[in-house]
Amino acid sequence: MESITSASYAVHFNHNAYAILEQHLTEKNYSKLFILVDTNTRRDCLPVLMSRLQDKYDFEVIEIEPGEENKNISTCTHVWEALSNLDADRKSLLINLGGGVVTDLGGFVASTFKRGIAFINIPTTLLAMVDASVGGKTGVDLGPLKNQIGVINQPEMVLVISEYLETLEKRQLNSGFAEMLKHGLIQDAAYWKSLKLITDFVDLDQPIYDSVIIKNKVVLQDPTEQGLRKILNYGHTLGHAIESYFLESTEHETLLHGEAIAIGMILEAYLSLHLTNLSEEALEDITSTFFNRYKRVKFSPSDIQNILSLLKFDKKNSHGNINFVLLHTIGKPVIDIKIPENLYQQAFTYYNEL
Amino acid sequence: MESITSASYAVHFNHNAYAILEQHLTEKNYSKLFILVDTNTRRDCLPVLMSRLQDKYDFEVIEIEPGEENKNISTCTHVWEALSNLDADRKSLLINLGGGVVTDLGGFVASTFKRGIAFINIPTTLLAMVDASVGGKTGVDLGPLKNQIGVINQPEMVLVISEYLETLEKRQLNSGFAEMLKHGLIQDAAYWKSLKLITDFVDLDQPIYDSVIIKNKVVLQDPTEQGLRKILNYGHTLGHAIESYFLESTEHETLLHGEAIAIGMILEAYLSLHLTNLSEEALEDITSTFFNRYKRVKFSPSDIQNILSLLKFDKKNSHGNINFVLLHTIGKPVIDIKIPENLYQQAFTYYNEL
Repeated sequence: MESITSASYAVHFNHNAYAILEQHLTEKNYSKLFILVDTNTRRDCLPVLMSRLQDKYDFEVIEIEPGEENKNISTCTHVWEALSNLDADRKSLLINLGGGVVTDLGGFVASTFKRGIAFINIPTTLLAMVDASVGGKTGVDLGPLKNQIGVINQPEMVLVISEYLETLEKRQLNSGFAEMLKHGLIQDAAYWKSLKLITDFVDLDQPIYDSVIIKNKVVLQDPTEQGLRKILNYGHTLGHAIESYFLESTEHETLLHGEAIAIGMILEAYLSLHLTNLSEEALEDITSTFFNRYKRVKFSPSDIQNILSLLKFDKKNSHGNINFVLLHTIGKPVIDIKIPENLYQQAFTYYNEL
Repeated sequence: MESITSASYAVHFNHNAYAILEQHLTEKNYSKLFILVDTNTRRDCLPVLMSRLQDKYDFEVIEIEPGEENKNISTCTHVWEALSNLDADRKSLLINLGGGVVTDLGGFVASTFKRGIAFINIPTTLLAMVDASVGGKTGVDLGPLKNQIGVINQPEMVLVISEYLETLEKRQLNSGFAEMLKHGLIQDAAYWKSLKLITDFVDLDQPIYDSVIIKNKVVLQDPTEQGLRKILNYGHTLGHAIESYFLESTEHETLLHGEAIAIGMILEAYLSLHLTNLSEEALEDITSTFFNRYKRVKFSPSDIQNILSLLKFDKKNSHGNINFVLLHTIGKPVIDIKIPENLYQQAFTYYNEL
């Protein structure tokens, strides 16, 4: 597969990727090489990477605990201190080998260590491959608030290598698949249709490639999220609030990111029916696709209240207004829509009664 | 005084500054205004700022503890949480009113909150006015290691207003004066001579202006410190290590930044005599100037050993090499000089025997 050129770097795929990485390491002559992993990717992915590179390089490995609950400043401090203790300097390289927690947190740590060292992302989950691989967003959570602390900064390159998906559980793959479905909804009705035909996750190379192309096209046109890029937030405004709430709640099982935004996309499709003329058929299509594929939950009245109060902390909100991305048709989003207060409740009722 | 244009913003002086700030606040229509202060600047400077702005604006005030020992990630978390709790959003503004700790930390917090909000620096110490006002360096310390965590990012504007110096202790003014003397040493022998004539700190407007001009000239030619900008590190390679060591040490009283780099400049002038042909007369001139004006210390053999071991953590070191800026003459620096191991000890002996 051909490499995809993003802002200041490229995304390389599969068998090409290792060769390009080796060439880069030779050319750049970094003073020291670091790899950030979590417990899972250390076990499942690091041995693969090492063997593909024929153990030719000396890497210092830094490990963090897996999971969104560790995507915080305290974990950053652990990594900053590890880099410092292992004599990382300004000419060092950090390779982030893992899911979105590792690439988002590792990108932030690298961007802020000694005011910025080079980093390379090797996403190992489907979610990170199609979502975090382009766009340059780095960051961590602040308490229950997702991605509150971070910077926009670009990696040297991103390597998307599907063999890392082999050790992933079906539920994790399905979570990433939600972002791919979103790319269809906001940009490409034909892609949406083709994704709906996929029932197993055996060969995802082409759909992953297509998703990276879509996201990259959006990001390149609006790197700092002034306008167009907001469409990537479809399903995320409510989805983030739901994810945050379930992460903190003791009564509910935590939702994966894709599971939360799948619910967000149903709710926001319902809002689209009322506010941006989405057709009944399209709402039905979106609702059934997500409802059949993703974890279902029941929202109690107090759940709904708590989720709505988290909404106001969403970092995209300005002047206290909450701006939604809704759909006009499948493939045609509309940005900066305000929601009448009573519609929130209606949307949750619609979901609860499915 | 005319404003000085830096990278993407300007430094405004004294009576102009307030008018320009008011105009900016009107034009930009920020969603919310925040001011970061420490206990001292809340008491001494905030009332002055408020009265100059005729209490026309609603500011949310966020306070931190003063002092280098609080320039850390834990204080950042306090400020990030305060911003979050006070409903700061991406269109909010943070004004940093304080010395280098407030402007460096506040700049970092603003640059990383929701991936970056606007900030304005109003330095209130002489050190921050002449040093932190241009260059876009933001950051905090990691344990004893100074400025290990940070980003390069530019404020909307910097306001240098000398009335804030009125409440400053002589020792603090003297600390800032060391950076001004450094600007003379690395760029302008005539400025160095003129500064030596200053014995009180009553009217510093012109010398401050000259210092900002010198620093800005250097920074604009090399914003990311590839070459020329390194000259600003004169006295800082050893000075930072000394400052870090004294901050952690229980046996020594903490040194102010300017006091530590004053010692660093003497030591590095001694190294310059041996490595870059600085004349005996120039060494004598530099040594007597700093030795007479700044706090004197005695370095024990274990002090020296500890300081040298901190050196290797200096963030400017690459591939384990320690690069010094030395002087060829007063006004003419030389970058990227390596020091033979035995000369370190000689330099400290020279200082101890003054």
